Amino acid sequence: MALVAYEQLLGEIKRVLIKYGVNEEKASLIATIYAENSLVGVYSHGANIFVNTCKRILEGTVNANAEPEKIGGLGGFERWEGNKGLGPYNSYTCAMRAAELAKEFGIGCVSLRNNNHWGRAGKYSSLIADQGMIGICATNGTSCMATWGGTTSRIGNNPLTIAVPREGGNVAVDMAFSQFSFGQLNNHKVAGKSLPVLGGYDESGEMTTDPAQVMETRKLLPVGYWKGAALATLIDLVVSCASTGNTTKQLDEFGADINISQIYIAINFAAIGGREEAMQIVEDTIAYVKDTEIAPGFESVRFPGQSLIDTKEKNLKDGIPLNDAVWENLLSL
Amino acid sequence: MALVAYEQLLGEIKRVLIKYGVNEEKASLIATIYAENSLVGVYSHGANIFVNTCKRILEGTVNANAEPEKIGGLGGFERWEGNKGLGPYNSYTCAMRAAELAKEFGIGCVSLRNNNHWGRAGKYSSLIADQGMIGICATNGTSCMATWGGTTSRIGNNPLTIAVPREGGNVAVDMAFSQFSFGQLNNHKVAGKSLPVLGGYDESGEMTTDPAQVMETRKLLPVGYWKGAALATLIDLVVSCASTGNTTKQLDEFGADINISQIYIAINFAAIGGREEAMQIVEDTIAYVKDTEIAPGFESVRFPGQSLIDTKEKNLKDGIPLNDAVWENLLSL
Repeated sequence: MALVAYEQLLGEIKRVLIKYGVNEEKASLIATIYAENSLVGVYSHGANIFVNTCKRILEGTVNANAEPEKIGGLGGFERWEGNKGLGPYNSYTCAMRAAELAKEFGIGCVSLRNNNHWGRAGKYSSLIADQGMIGICATNGTSCMATWGGTTSRIGNNPLTIAVPREGGNVAVDMAFSQFSFGQLNNHKVAGKSLPVLGGYDESGEMTTDPAQVMETRKLLPVGYWKGAALATLIDLVVSCASTGNTTKQLDEFGADINISQIYIAINFAAIGGREEAMQIVEDTIAYVKDTEIAPGFESVRFPGQSLIDTKEKNLKDGIPLNDAVWENLLSL
Repeated sequence: MALVAYEQLLGEIKRVLIKYGVNEEKASLIATIYAENSLVGVYSHGANIFVNTCKRILEGTVNANAEPEKIGGLGGFERWEGNKGLGPYNSYTCAMRAAELAKEFGIGCVSLRNNNHWGRAGKYSSLIADQGMIGICATNGTSCMATWGGTTSRIGNNPLTIAVPREGGNVAVDMAFSQFSFGQLNNHKVAGKSLPVLGGYDESGEMTTDPAQVMETRKLLPVGYWKGAALATLIDLVVSCASTGNTTKQLDEFGADINISQIYIAINFAAIGGREEAMQIVEDTIAYVKDTEIAPGFESVRFPGQSLIDTKEKNLKDGIPLNDAVWENLLSL
């Protein structure tokens, strides 16, 4: 495990992007997003996914120099084309555009088609929250879950993220609709641990806590069983209908999370007053959910988003723990 | 069990509302919502909850003649005050207003404070979908779940509903963030059945499938464990910040789902073209999620919202099955 300073990671990612022909300003912006994802502890969607994205740039499925463009709009709602550009850049552009629209129209919504993997989903709702608005973003992806009552993979885990502004760090949720991600399954497998709760199906079709078996069948359990399967299906429909983009069905045909569909919503609630009340609501709610007896086996409870804030502070001080192979790979690019 | 024709149920609810001083047009509208909820099979939020609401009208916590009013707005975003009126009426008004705003601004959003129980959450996103738009609605409520790692009830099950338009019946999800509702727990208890999956905590703090024990502790399990607890917390913040209304903390102080906070979003994606593509996306996705091998113990799979469509057809033909006591109570009002 390498411990890498944030500025160093940022510099390396920026260097590679410039090498691929990305201009300096754009490279800085994109590098900041990937490096920050590692900084806040979402390692799978920081340096790790950047290294994979570089392969896609080299093979030509991702165009590092593409610019997203608006293809239609009415008032606060716009439809954008991602032109197969870099996911985090397109997503940053659309999240910021949604916030811009919300300044004028109270609420802004940008739907985006033909984007590539945006990295950490929660980044974009948090970007919107950083401007004092409520951010809601969602994406689709290739399937990893069955419709409830079925056994064939048909539904993506289609993350939904919501962030509410707060001084000291937003309250935020970044929720894929499988109970565990493949990354989490692998972490448990490598550590020789069972999953803490049921996570998917084994070969005989039984639910299991064995991460290795779930990784083999690739049949993950939806959050809340039938409930998460249904909500993830609706998220696929929302992002693809709004953007007239690809659905999970098409992504499964591509066999990869490319040319995906997304949505970015910004609610500028404070534009009509109420910012102070809202900030009090947020603090009071945090205090309320933390004011609880602690369950056996736990030391404390956290508000949604707190672990990112805590990890960022720790990693800024101690350096970001990166997998040696990922770090060496990045240095070699 | 009484089997009641839809028109008869509608007539009885309307009769009672008029008796309480509600004018004929408004009584018709409200009765339609309650009766339809029973018609589509969500019995707990149709005739059953209407009978309870009548008690609240008589005791004065619900004002059957109140009108909701706009208290602020910018472009597509508005904040409304529910004035403690009848939940379904306020909610209908705000959902229709969100759709109206979306006609002008592409996206519309109404936040509502001081509303009463809206009955079936999915009604309002479906109302928006009936106008060819994506509907997204959410509410907060009194707590029934603990923060993950805690044991004290601090989080409401805060339903989120999403509907996408479809000829022949919308694709829709209506999802409370507890794995089961109290109504479902009671149904299992009465039938002497265990829950199909873990549903809450027993007295010793262990997770259990025993509905009676969960009903006693009133500690329900969040959908997806830590994930649903986090998302439900964010929904509380979204609806209360947007409306500057009460949070679950305040509702717990009231000890009832009164003066609650809600949000109604309408995305008029077809306003800039794409309606035909979207309708094809919806049909293709339904076909895709239903094209699966069937798991042991199941006969078929359904798309989200299908059971409501099927139940409506059956109940229109056979009559709506109502609990005898509820039906007699309604007739006696």
